[in-house]
Parts: sequence; C-alpha cells; structure tokens
Amino acid sequence: MHRVKVRVVEDALDANSTIARANRDDFDRHGVTVVNLMSAPGAGKTTVLERVLADGLGSVRAGVLEGDVQGSLDADRLAHLHLPVVQLNTDSGFGGECHLDANMVRSALPSLPLADLDLLIVENVGNLVCPAEFALGEDARIMVASVAEGADKPLKYPLMFRSCELVILNKIDLLPHVDFDVERFRHYLDQVHPGVTVMTCSARTGEGIGEVRDWLAALPERTASPV
Amino acid sequence: MHRVKVRVVEDALDANSTIARANRDDFDRHGVTVVNLMSAPGAGKTTVLERVLADGLGSVRAGVLEGDVQGSLDADRLAHLHLPVVQLNTDSGFGGECHLDANMVRSALPSLPLADLDLLIVENVGNLVCPAEFALGEDARIMVASVAEGADKPLKYPLMFRSCELVILNKIDLLPHVDFDVERFRHYLDQVHPGVTVMTCSARTGEGIGEVRDWLAALPERTASPV
Repeated sequence: MHRVKVRVVEDALDANSTIARANRDDFDRHGVTVVNLMSAPGAGKTTVLERVLADGLGSVRAGVLEGDVQGSLDADRLAHLHLPVVQLNTDSGFGGECHLDANMVRSALPSLPLADLDLLIVENVGNLVCPAEFALGEDARIMVASVAEGADKPLKYPLMFRSCELVILNKIDLLPHVDFDVERFRHYLDQVHPGVTVMTCSARTGEGIGEVRDWLAALPERTASPV
Repeated sequence: MHRVKVRVVEDALDANSTIARANRDDFDRHGVTVVNLMSAPGAGKTTVLERVLADGLGSVRAGVLEGDVQGSLDADRLAHLHLPVVQLNTDSGFGGECHLDANMVRSALPSLPLADLDLLIVENVGNLVCPAEFALGEDARIMVASVAEGADKPLKYPLMFRSCELVILNKIDLLPHVDFDVERFRHYLDQVHPGVTVMTCSARTGEGIGEVRDWLAALPERTASPV
C-alpha cells in the first residue's frame, strides 16, 4: 500500500512543481515578490501579520492570501488593514487538505490584484509537515515558531525548519512563564539549518516586530528579477 | 489533478479502514483498550502523558506508542516511567507522513507486549488536520488543545475537534499571560461538537491532571467488550 502511495505522492509533487513554476512566471511578470508563511496551528502567523502590516511597509504595496481548511476568521482579522486580502479554503473543492499547493494558489490568482502589489504574503494552513513539501511559486519562506511549543521542534519537524529563509520565534513575552530554552532551540535549529536567519518577537506586545517588518519591506528589492 | 487526488485519498481511506478493523480485532483479542491522542505540535501531549502516567493508573497496565515524523525525543522522555514505550517514525518507510495510519500502527504491533497491556495510548504526529481522518483501530480519541494556541481553533480545525470523545485544554497556567477566552473556546467547541467532554489542566503544574488520569484509568472498563 505504501509503495503505491509514495509513488502517487511523487507524481503529485511533480505536477505541483510544474504549476508552481507557472505561478512564479505570473508573479515575476507582475513584479510581485511572494512569501510562503508557515507555522504550527496557533503559533501566531496572523497576529504577526497584523502587527507587521499595521502601519504599512513604506512604499511596498502588500497583499495577503489566507489559507485555511475552513472559514475566514484570519482574513476577517486582517480586513481592518485595508489591504487586498483573499481567503482560500482547502475544503472547498480541494478535499480539506492540510496544506496549500500550487494549484490552490493558482485558483486564487484571478482574485488577486497582482498589478497593484509588490509583495504577496501567503499564509499557509497551520501544520509543520506537509506545507514544507509543496512549492507555491514563492520567492521566500518564513516560518513562525512559538516559545509555547517547546524547543525540540526543529528536531521533530526538520524539513519545515530547513526549508525557510527566516525563522521567527514568537511569543517571547511568555518566556518567563514557560520552560523554553532559547539557546537549546537555536542549537537544535543550527543542527537542521545552519546559518538560517532567526528573529525573536512578541506579536502581542510588539517587541521585535520592527526587525521583521524591515526584513519583509526589503524583500522585494532583494529578490528583484529583471522584469 | 484534484479530482484524481481525492479519488486516491478515498481509496487509501478505504484500505485504511480495513487495516484499522484488523488492528481492532487484535486489540480486542488481547483485551487492550486503545486511545488515539492527537494535538497540534507543542500543545503538550507528551507532557500530559508524563504527568498522567507518572504514578501509574492503578491496576490498569498502560503502554505507549509514540508517533513522530522523525527522532525518538518523546519516547526518550517517557523512558523513565518504566512502561512499554515503542517509537514509530513516519519517515522510515512511510514517506514522512503528517499522521499515523492503520498500517503504520499495524507494523508496530509485533513490538508491543499486547498480552501485558490493558490500555495502549497512541500519541499521533502533531497535526490538527490529517490525523483525524485515519482510524487506527482505536476505542477512543483524545485531543489536547493549548491556551497558547488561541480560542478559534475549533472553528478552524472542526474535524479534529468533532472526532474526539475528550478535549483536554492544557497550559491553563498561562491563562493570565495570553489573550485566551475560555468561554469563547467552549462556545466554538459547542458549535462543532455539542456535548463533548472538556477537561482543563496544566501538565506543567499538575493542576487538573487527576481528572484526566481518572478518565483514562476508567476507560478500559467503560469500553470493555466481551472477550
């Protein structure tokens, strides 16, 4: 059973890569830099986004594609930011998948004002496994880890931590109240992804959010390809 | 592409149900009650288990099957409890799956001393989506939610919350430090799974663990089928 299943998964991943390249071509043609934002459920992706985008990103025009299994809670939370926000549900015609894939993102492209964007942030489904396996056509991957989750996560979900350019350690306001050893987390992270950029923040208090905002605001210029 | 994929998933789920029934037959023959323990990454499944099993379950002989994508960190943490603990990795021949399925559990059965157990707790991979879709042959499902994750999770991952007999709300020692509205969580939970049993606890401080322990210790008698 599993040999067949692995083969099917490989075929699906091949198909996904082809569609991801088509997405990437569309993004490049419009000069849009795309970020795939991932985390476990409840690590704080949406709250980080709310904080980072609250006062805009300078001259960078940002939009958000919200991925969820069901519902539009996260898109609703971002509505007050007056940015283009599009909700994408994996249970509407996509079998309730635990991750976004390139085809789902492709289905949302007509709803996105690509010509008016410099940066598109795609918030993936909360999950530390499968989202890392499916390219969407993105330029960069960010993951958010929370100090409430425990320091062992890089060792337990290595592909996720390995596939990101930036790891944001969120909820640092909780550090006095949880048994989270930041040095041990960095040590484990270094084992699976040496040299990866790490930023610490609290989306609740705003501490450290400026650094994340600067990184995101600089990304379109950093990844610019000749249009 | 997705129509084909959904068809494949349905076939896989049919095959899974068949194997789950075979597991269930084996468990029944040995008089073992089986719990499928699920949560998001870092919600505290292993710490809850450590606390609950620290002083045993009275006359109930318990064992643990630890599911992880990679590594044996959780099994190592439980080693001091002097219970049968078996580690099952989804990346060893199972394609790094984001969930356990009946076949993976079946592959671990020869390593488990079923004849010496009354209760087997299967700790699933940390994920709020796919684990809920795959029966393992269990008698009951428990999920652990953490107050650090946010109160909206029942609405965002309804299948998971709907499929469990018991919802454990963990990390209540963090309530003074997070924006988590317990009443709102219960209200959302009631929308997706009216009447489900809810227990609150802190695996860190031990508060509320006694109630969880009593529930687990009573489970074999409650689910006993004529052997």
